[in-house]
Amino acid sequence: MTIASTSSLAWDWLEQLAKCSETTNPDVEGVTRLCATKEHKEAINLLKQYMIESGMSVRMDNAANLIGRYASTESDAKTLIFGSHQDTVPNGGKYDGILGVVAPLALVHHLNQQGIQLPYNIDVIAFSDEEGTRFQSTLLGSKAISGIFDPTMLDAMDPQGVSLQDALHDFGCETQQIKNDAYDAEEVIGFVELHIEQGPQLEAEQLPVGVVSAITGIERHTITIHGKAGHAGTVPMHNRQDALVGAASVISTFDALCKSDRELVGVIGKIENYPNGVNVIPQKTHITVELRSPIDEKRRNARATFLASIQQQLNALNLTYDHTQTYEQQAVQCSKALSDKLTQAIETCGIKPKTLFSGAGHDGLAVSSLTDIAMLFMRCTDGVSHHPDEAITQEDLQASLQVLKEFCLAI
Amino acid sequence: MTIASTSSLAWDWLEQLAKCSETTNPDVEGVTRLCATKEHKEAINLLKQYMIESGMSVRMDNAANLIGRYASTESDAKTLIFGSHQDTVPNGGKYDGILGVVAPLALVHHLNQQGIQLPYNIDVIAFSDEEGTRFQSTLLGSKAISGIFDPTMLDAMDPQGVSLQDALHDFGCETQQIKNDAYDAEEVIGFVELHIEQGPQLEAEQLPVGVVSAITGIERHTITIHGKAGHAGTVPMHNRQDALVGAASVISTFDALCKSDRELVGVIGKIENYPNGVNVIPQKTHITVELRSPIDEKRRNARATFLASIQQQLNALNLTYDHTQTYEQQAVQCSKALSDKLTQAIETCGIKPKTLFSGAGHDGLAVSSLTDIAMLFMRCTDGVSHHPDEAITQEDLQASLQVLKEFCLAI
Repeated sequence: MTIASTSSLAWDWLEQLAKCSETTNPDVEGVTRLCATKEHKEAINLLKQYMIESGMSVRMDNAANLIGRYASTESDAKTLIFGSHQDTVPNGGKYDGILGVVAPLALVHHLNQQGIQLPYNIDVIAFSDEEGTRFQSTLLGSKAISGIFDPTMLDAMDPQGVSLQDALHDFGCETQQIKNDAYDAEEVIGFVELHIEQGPQLEAEQLPVGVVSAITGIERHTITIHGKAGHAGTVPMHNRQDALVGAASVISTFDALCKSDRELVGVIGKIENYPNGVNVIPQKTHITVELRSPIDEKRRNARATFLASIQQQLNALNLTYDHTQTYEQQAVQCSKALSDKLTQAIETCGIKPKTLFSGAGHDGLAVSSLTDIAMLFMRCTDGVSHHPDEAITQEDLQASLQVLKEFCLAI
Repeated sequence: MTIASTSSLAWDWLEQLAKCSETTNPDVEGVTRLCATKEHKEAINLLKQYMIESGMSVRMDNAANLIGRYASTESDAKTLIFGSHQDTVPNGGKYDGILGVVAPLALVHHLNQQGIQLPYNIDVIAFSDEEGTRFQSTLLGSKAISGIFDPTMLDAMDPQGVSLQDALHDFGCETQQIKNDAYDAEEVIGFVELHIEQGPQLEAEQLPVGVVSAITGIERHTITIHGKAGHAGTVPMHNRQDALVGAASVISTFDALCKSDRELVGVIGKIENYPNGVNVIPQKTHITVELRSPIDEKRRNARATFLASIQQQLNALNLTYDHTQTYEQQAVQCSKALSDKLTQAIETCGIKPKTLFSGAGHDGLAVSSLTDIAMLFMRCTDGVSHHPDEAITQEDLQASLQVLKEFCLAI
């Protein structure tokens, strides 16, 4: 069986799995597959079948992760873990997550067909929940296998009032055993995830794949600017305390700051203005700020620059403000050793190597507490993700499989 | 009777009239008195009584305007009209509008007490509706006396589904006769309105009153900026089409433009951002723009500058936009002859004269189509209006009455 036919098989699997969705027409409505649901069960049943056909042993752990093992013939073999999440955002795409399960599974199928034995085990994991759509329980699956699952998360409720505890129990999990599902770090070589880029960089450079240098750190803030409402015709311009004018200054400043450095990414995505009347001077404007960088120090420095700058600007506009940092997650650097091996594999396949950082969070954020991680990004059309239009090509899928095969043979 | 005691009387009348309100405690909740309501009737009944006590004849026209006449003893005397509106915004103040009815009425009371006859009639009008709170029927009363009332307005509905037609009919008006209620321009000397400034300029210069040069022209626009939604972490900064960043640029540009000329006033009061998510690049941002100037040409030039500027800016940000002008009202210049007489009266009273333009609309906008208009602004505390905290002082009321008396004696 060639990599080309393996790629066709993987493509078929992806199409079959897309049907495990709350939507009736995934091509148009996208895929909605949440944790511990009927659709999750359907996906697991398909994946189990593919794993068995690929010569793997299969188990589901107590966090509803499905794990297939392609066992090494060597005794005391360590394990290389591949995987990604099976769940989606509402009306998401056919590839975000599940591609990182299907592709290594198809590779194992290929190795098994070719009778290739490896000096290590390959585990392919379909993590139960990364998006956190149903329970706001981001990285549920990858935290469990990494031994950092927080049991208080079991109390989280879905919108129908079902707890994660009950949902997992009904799914066949013994939640009190989750703590025992963590891998032993001593027995793991590393973790590798294939994921669509969710951005336009590979497409812009006409490359099918790229190696991820780091998973971004993220911080979020809320800023509420306080002005003074007034009649929009009678208060002279130089007497005004217009909160929205202050917000505009903050937005422009932040955008310019993020554009000043290729390793900074940020957005002010949300704005609420009060009283928000056509002819009333804005009294209060609330914005959210999200800042990302693969280099934590750079992110912290940018934050300090930003906060100092807006203090000066808002003071000059005679405005006051409240600022709260609401979230911070450190960046995770990918393993140089594993990433170098991915780069070598890419070169072996005759593809120009490219390194880029991940601006989105991924399961590797959790797994990095267990073992070295590496990520391979695959080009996606127009950089679109979390949307029914999310798309990849069969050629890129084949290239990714080829790269993963070369990588596995070189470990 | 001195002007001081007349001022006390006017103060008492203002307090009594404030009780004609939907609210139970006008000092705290403000005054809510809408057109053709029980509270309007209560106010008319009080005003009728004050008019009769002041030696006036009284009638209500078919637009529910209450008109008191202090008739000249001379035959074929022309008429000087004073007046303002009796209605309020919801939870408005005790002075916006009604002050311009009560003050000239108190002046007539004073003239009558002192046996002063004038070579012209004084009409004092309590316009039924200027704010348009109930029927969105702005300037209803002043349009009717000016002969520019549009009968299609009678179909306007209040939030309870009552038409203006029915409300006026139930109030005792014959709406088909409104067209006959217009004054004959030949018989009118002019129209003078006393109104609180609704801004901070007189207070800043420690002046009780000021003469209005013009009532502002106003134009409004809606602008919708179209960007492209995307993952806030994965789309590189230089590839973004962030609609909110475009809106921020527009807001800052407009604010700077309005601050560049003392005869420009403007606000971007309303903003709606989509999808307005913490971690999504804004796809679409909608803003309203309101621009005012007492000089129409200056306003039009500023508009052209603004539109050219944002076109350039939004193009540079790779954004498109829709723009619609939704409203335009020309400025109305006050009569130089009447305004000069107001200025002389102010000087006679030993007050430093000051001229300022009105950034808000007033009944004079409509009455200017009938006759020359003039306006006297009275200082109000902190420039606050349309709010329960709206306040004036007894001293300023007395100064205004003195000025109006000197004005009347000089006509």
